[in-house]
Amino acid sequence: MENIIHFEDYQVGQARKTPGRTVTEADIVFHAGHSGDFYPHHVDCEFCKTQPFGQRIAHGTLTFLFAVGLQANFGRVAGHVEGYHRLRFIKPVFIGDTLTARLTVLQKNSDGGSEGTVTEKCETINQKDDLVFVMEQTLRVRRRERENSGPSKHPGRKG
Amino acid sequence: MENIIHFEDYQVGQARKTPGRTVTEADIVFHAGHSGDFYPHHVDCEFCKTQPFGQRIAHGTLTFLFAVGLQANFGRVAGHVEGYHRLRFIKPVFIGDTLTARLTVLQKNSDGGSEGTVTEKCETINQKDDLVFVMEQTLRVRRRERENSGPSKHPGRKG
Amino acid sequence: MENIIHFEDYQVGQARKTPGRTVTEADIVFHAGHSGDFYPHHVDCEFCKTQPFGQRIAHGTLTFLFAVGLQANFGRVAGHVEGYHRLRFIKPVFIGDTLTARLTVLQKNSDGGSEGTVTEKCETINQKDDLVFVMEQTLRVRRRERENSGPSKHPGRKG
Amino acid sequence: MENIIHFEDYQVGQARKTPGRTVTEADIVFHAGHSGDFYPHHVDCEFCKTQPFGQRIAHGTLTFLFAVGLQANFGRVAGHVEGYHRLRFIKPVFIGDTLTARLTVLQKNSDGGSEGTVTEKCETINQKDDLVFVMEQTLRVRRRERENSGPSKHPGRKG
Amino acid sequence: MENIIHFEDYQVGQARKTPGRTVTEADIVFHAGHSGDFYPHHVDCEFCKTQPFGQRIAHGTLTFLFAVGLQANFGRVAGHVEGYHRLRFIKPVFIGDTLTARLTVLQKNSDGGSEGTVTEKCETINQKDDLVFVMEQTLRVRRRERENSGPSKHPGRKG
Amino acid sequence: MENIIHFEDYQVGQARKTPGRTVTEADIVFHAGHSGDFYPHHVDCEFCKTQPFGQRIAHGTLTFLFAVGLQANFGRVAGHVEGYHRLRFIKPVFIGDTLTARLTVLQKNSDGGSEGTVTEKCETINQKDDLVFVMEQTLRVRRRERENSGPSKHPGRKG
Repeated sequence: MENIIHFEDYQVGQARKTPGRTVTEADIVFHAGHSGDFYPHHVDCEFCKTQPFGQRIAHGTLTFLFAVGLQANFGRVAGHVEGYHRLRFIKPVFIGDTLTARLTVLQKNSDGGSEGTVTEKCETINQKDDLVFVMEQTLRVRRRERENSGPSKHPGRKG
Repeated sequence: MENIIHFEDYQVGQARKTPGRTVTEADIVFHAGHSGDFYPHHVDCEFCKTQPFGQRIAHGTLTFLFAVGLQANFGRVAGHVEGYHRLRFIKPVFIGDTLTARLTVLQKNSDGGSEGTVTEKCETINQKDDLVFVMEQTLRVRRRERENSGPSKHPGRKG
Repeated sequence: MENIIHFEDYQVGQARKTPGRTVTEADIVFHAGHSGDFYPHHVDCEFCKTQPFGQRIAHGTLTFLFAVGLQANFGRVAGHVEGYHRLRFIKPVFIGDTLTARLTVLQKNSDGGSEGTVTEKCETINQKDDLVFVMEQTLRVRRRERENSGPSKHPGRKG
Repeated sequence: MENIIHFEDYQVGQARKTPGRTVTEADIVFHAGHSGDFYPHHVDCEFCKTQPFGQRIAHGTLTFLFAVGLQANFGRVAGHVEGYHRLRFIKPVFIGDTLTARLTVLQKNSDGGSEGTVTEKCETINQKDDLVFVMEQTLRVRRRERENSGPSKHPGRKG
Repeated sequence: MENIIHFEDYQVGQARKTPGRTVTEADIVFHAGHSGDFYPHHVDCEFCKTQPFGQRIAHGTLTFLFAVGLQANFGRVAGHVEGYHRLRFIKPVFIGDTLTARLTVLQKNSDGGSEGTVTEKCETINQKDDLVFVMEQTLRVRRRERENSGPSKHPGRKG
Repeated sequence: MENIIHFEDYQVGQARKTPGRTVTEADIVFHAGHSGDFYPHHVDCEFCKTQPFGQRIAHGTLTFLFAVGLQANFGRVAGHVEGYHRLRFIKPVFIGDTLTARLTVLQKNSDGGSEGTVTEKCETINQKDDLVFVMEQTLRVRRRERENSGPSKHPGRKG
């Protein structure tokens, strides 16, 4: 019953949306400790009151991580991430915001081998439908028909 | 005695290296739980034995996070990250690898205002001096001379 | 001064109550990441607003874990858990609820050896004295008098 | 593309297996801190050397949690857990063991309403195919055909 | 059955030992993230190889924290810590070391009120019985006989 | 560009202040789990309502840890902590309080070797400028001029 996504499952122009996840204070505290980034923008309420945004904001890397992680809850891609591109932080993300990633297939290419390349736009939106973060991601994904013809020679990495 | 890095402190071509940090099993377990990405490449030793890399590998997002977090331990930039670009995962990162980020200033631009834009290459290397991950980062950084002339009007976000 | 509970210390019908512990947002975030269960009932505030319970609820496994963990803060049982039975989730547990476990000895049996079997009802109640979770637990517990007659031959597992 | 499992998807006798997950030292440390259970069986190597199992063992509650959590990575059940039954810890689980849950549908019942009850056996096995933990779980699961006929009146809890 | 320790329970010269706890790599990773202390002595294996101790060492604050935390697993003191004194880090603590705290009552004073002051030496030893850390701690502890005469007026803080 | 603090950089009477950090509910939950200290003063809201302080308070060890950790975000000391002294918890620390450490050099001594001893007062204050915790710390710090004359013979531990 597990949902494995193969190269054939991607259609250019097709869009889908991940489940949502609320950014909590605990996530920001964890993220500071996990990354080692204790900038006062994330961990010092008093400093934040003196800033235009007025309250603690999520690390940009946390927003990125949620955008990627939400996809992993979605169905397993038979492949790996080759790269992320043009990451842009559009609006601040606050404690209590709920993020969802909207994925649109921009391009798919295949040289006829057992894998192909898929490029997707990943737009992260909050509960007000504001775009807070956008990037593109390039995946190497295996074809379904080659799955049963022996172990993949290039299972590669996964992002 | 805190070390604040301003626009004037960046010189094109200048390179510096962050301290190192070892990727532990605990980091990968933590990262899976923080991101929600439990792909077997990261959490299932038995699956990994059947793969070419033969052992668990770090999430690409973990390598990225360490590359960014190591910079935060380094001195505080008077500004924020506008974007990351061309993230490429070159080699797998294993448990026990020690990562360091090597930063090189590629470009700096200023329109004469209180801030300027700095573009850096960020190369993440392991203990064997192998390049495992590379990206570019664009920062908006305040000038030192404007620091004392009242509160910044655009303190903006921080990545 | 450590408090070790032996087979002789249990009396059928005897009841006791553990200290309390408040379920926090951080506990739910941890629990999602520890278990890998990111169902929107636990991590998506916007989804929860569309549901009858109206807000995030604790994982059933979190309530169970607190019920067991609170007992471990209580005094150490000279034995191990053989099994848990008839776990029933009666009412939802919300962020801010304070849980306490009420234990009642239902049965104790001994075949005359160095250990006996104890069955307890474990009722978990919140700050309004509502029963939120109930189960039974079966323990194998060593007798006190056998403690000093050499190392236990069957120290067994502990739940 | 998200995989939602409805009442109609269950067939009595049908079996499936979750992905695997390796129990790490970090998981046990985390579990002790999350539950508050610091029994020496889990956190004291020197004590464990004096015991028949000779090394630290996973908390029974950790094994249970992995068994439940692995199912959440699998596809989302349109329903909630009503109860767990007859939890039995068969063999100790050690650091480095990789656990998988094998689910078998034992029974399904429906009173003709929008939901039905499903009972499954959940067997947790390690990398040597040893059964380490077994239980039964009872789920309330919505029918697919009723999904589009307005918001569910009893979305209930989720375990 | 909970074990509450009162002023009357302390005897000058009396010694007791807490359960043990093994310092794991995960504990050090957590501690770095919790405290924000990412000195290479704790998180950079390659740096540590160039140092006389040759491997990662636990933060001094981690050793202190374990010494205090192990006491909390022991029985609850009816009081709070007023201060810690003369903390001295005698030997490095490595990953895999198992720590135990040995407590000796040095002094107890009472002005006849509902509380008294207790001073204890706390010696932290590893599995080779080497003293790795030593300190003194001063507690304010309630008398047992006053427990039932209404709510304490000065329950104070707890360390 | 990393900021390394040497023996020569300390001046008796000189004071400096670390960045701030807000104590969150997540920090207290994490601290309970990391230390094993689940006293109800920290984890049981209902108990706390019956106490004079009326709400959960931070562990004293958490306040101490933040005071030490904030210094590590500040610039790296070329040395290690020999000891902490006269730790006194002056006022309770609540969820939402923002802590900063104020360091004043009390004394510096050198026997002419490659290292010297520095004693500092560390005062931890909250956002209302109330002193909540005070201690002294003794550091062994290397001289700058000796840095390049070969590997340090006594790099010692770090607190």
